[in-house]
Amino acid sequence: MALIVQKYGGTSVGSVERIQKVAERVQATRGQGHDVVVVVSAMSGETNRLIDLAHQVSPQPDPREYDVLVSTGEQVTIALLAMALNARGCRARSFTGGQVHIRTDSAHTKARIVEIDEARVRRELEAGTVVVVAGFQGVDEDGNITTLGRGGSDTTAVALAAALGADECQIFTDVDGVYTTDPRVEPNARRLDRITFEEMLEMASLGSKVLQIRAVEFAGKYSVPLRVLSSFEEGPGTLITYEEEDMEQPVISGIAFNRDEAQLSVRGVPDRPGVAWHILGPVGEANIEVDMIIQNVGADGTTDFTFTVHRNDYERARAILEDTARRLEAREVAGDNRIVKISLVGVGMRSHAGIASRMFEALANEGINIRMISTSEIKISVVVEEKYLELGVRALHAAFGLDQAPAA
Amino acid sequence: MALIVQKYGGTSVGSVERIQKVAERVQATRGQGHDVVVVVSAMSGETNRLIDLAHQVSPQPDPREYDVLVSTGEQVTIALLAMALNARGCRARSFTGGQVHIRTDSAHTKARIVEIDEARVRRELEAGTVVVVAGFQGVDEDGNITTLGRGGSDTTAVALAAALGADECQIFTDVDGVYTTDPRVEPNARRLDRITFEEMLEMASLGSKVLQIRAVEFAGKYSVPLRVLSSFEEGPGTLITYEEEDMEQPVISGIAFNRDEAQLSVRGVPDRPGVAWHILGPVGEANIEVDMIIQNVGADGTTDFTFTVHRNDYERARAILEDTARRLEAREVAGDNRIVKISLVGVGMRSHAGIASRMFEALANEGINIRMISTSEIKISVVVEEKYLELGVRALHAAFGLDQAPAA
Repeated sequence: MALIVQKYGGTSVGSVERIQKVAERVQATRGQGHDVVVVVSAMSGETNRLIDLAHQVSPQPDPREYDVLVSTGEQVTIALLAMALNARGCRARSFTGGQVHIRTDSAHTKARIVEIDEARVRRELEAGTVVVVAGFQGVDEDGNITTLGRGGSDTTAVALAAALGADECQIFTDVDGVYTTDPRVEPNARRLDRITFEEMLEMASLGSKVLQIRAVEFAGKYSVPLRVLSSFEEGPGTLITYEEEDMEQPVISGIAFNRDEAQLSVRGVPDRPGVAWHILGPVGEANIEVDMIIQNVGADGTTDFTFTVHRNDYERARAILEDTARRLEAREVAGDNRIVKISLVGVGMRSHAGIASRMFEALANEGINIRMISTSEIKISVVVEEKYLELGVRALHAAFGLDQAPAA
Repeated sequence: MALIVQKYGGTSVGSVERIQKVAERVQATRGQGHDVVVVVSAMSGETNRLIDLAHQVSPQPDPREYDVLVSTGEQVTIALLAMALNARGCRARSFTGGQVHIRTDSAHTKARIVEIDEARVRRELEAGTVVVVAGFQGVDEDGNITTLGRGGSDTTAVALAAALGADECQIFTDVDGVYTTDPRVEPNARRLDRITFEEMLEMASLGSKVLQIRAVEFAGKYSVPLRVLSSFEEGPGTLITYEEEDMEQPVISGIAFNRDEAQLSVRGVPDRPGVAWHILGPVGEANIEVDMIIQNVGADGTTDFTFTVHRNDYERARAILEDTARRLEAREVAGDNRIVKISLVGVGMRSHAGIASRMFEALANEGINIRMISTSEIKISVVVEEKYLELGVRALHAAFGLDQAPAA
């Protein structure tokens, strides 16, 4: 008998019929003798309906009141799910974030969980009750309702699992696990049975939108075993593990990619101390986030400086850069918003040499020109022309044998 | 500078535009230098939408979860109203029932307020904040969300006014006050400037649906000055006062009526002790509420027993009565579901003789036959055929000079 925290997102509880399906699954877990805590999001569409109402009242709604408003979305779901469970003879009680003492800071609309007093939940579990908790919300020190920001329900689930010392935190989504890469790009993509937290973080931040990054970080920090499963199909999903566990890690776990990138370069910048700061300072001040950064020193005492931004910020960033280039007396500004980033992710890189050259070779064999390279301990990212995305992903998927399950 | 509690019902906050209107009015009150607490209901239609959802999940939804669900309706309104107020520069904060410690018993869906810890509200008022409170809801001793039942927002407003010692509790509705009778029946009906609590109770229980009976009782118990006003028009409304105040009471304040009545009689019941109990016991056990009751002893040692029930319960009550009549060896059962009750209400009756005979004379002059009579200290009710409702109400309205304002 284990203690399981299950989280169901908005599409999983998007209608009364789906809520009944979730109730069925929760009851089945309970029937296996486990204690169950369920965290749910608002029914899909409900949060947007509430936000629309807020914006009809005021273009910039008061953040405290915004939280009071949107937190009703999850409250509706917890009540309906607890009703559905009780109706099928599975004793359940619903709780808002405040009722189970999910204490956050006071940063309305993007609050962070400070502590959870799990005593109330534990009391209910001991009484044999399924505890249904509203995700995404808490209360601050003064009892004001706060929300954690979009996707915060994952964080609620992980935080509750950590506070309760749960045996597993199961995140039910509309995919049945984490894949070696996006199956829409590479049909041979394979569901991973396991992935490490670090790899998951890299995959998530690169656009595999299975899990919220904050939730994964939280789970890693408190060593909560996390599993991603499908709400709609049976299956074991993907378990997110610690590297320390005694298992053979595959060298490469997956290939992430990001279509939203744009590249900007300033060429021929007189190479003086502070160049990077002079170039990126004004970009940051304009609230534009910078992803990859590369600087090369040329032979003639000038330097080339290249970075990537979100495609939506491309025009704005370019205008700022033109201005900066004039001030720095740089030769020219160049840019391209038709580029993508492809990344190999795998903790095995740490102990295996030659991964990068194998990657570059695989791309070269397909005639794909690499525009930028950036590496971290468990990731190698390249920027290539947009048109090469599918070809590049498939070439790497094959080159690293990702369509084959790793040998035991 | 006074402390005013204002309550706005579902139609008054039924759209974003109406919420803006309410904000305007609240700001105006604040602008006069008053401290303001606002209690609001769910936007009209919202509670029904939520109840529909509940019934889609389960024909008999768990009452605790039902309360968690429907209480979100008011939470949406408080957030939107507080946003609207802040957006127009009027500092406001919203609070759920639980947040301002409206403690109730645990009778879900029909809880009663046990106490209010008004410290939080007072602290906010002292800071110059308009306090916006969700009506209709509270929490029990264990922190479970409860609701007070339909119309409970009036009770919330009155209870808060009592706890805070407010100078006035203003109930905004879609009518501009309490009338001498329903203007749809008697176009000469006149808005009353004042009415006593007792009269208001009689008017409310007789179908003048301006205020919830429980709220009026509560106001009377704690001497809360209550005023009924229109959300949509300017005007002084009707003040509900204590009789003790030194003012000349009009003899008759108004004429109430009830179209939902049906009459049942058992005739020729052998007159033995316990007849009333034998007849009404089975009716009560079937959960049928009885309104007027009359028993006459005949000359032949039998008695006639007559009572009224809600029209919806007529067939059921009649079937029970046929059964009872056989057991008691009564002569016959008779009934009529096309009757109405008309009542004169006025605290002046206590000190004025001859009201009843003037009433009967006015009805006789119109050829209206009286089927039942029942009196209390401040009320005389008659049952007449349904077709005489309008004629009877107008005749009495004229006979007691209700279309004229009382002499000062």
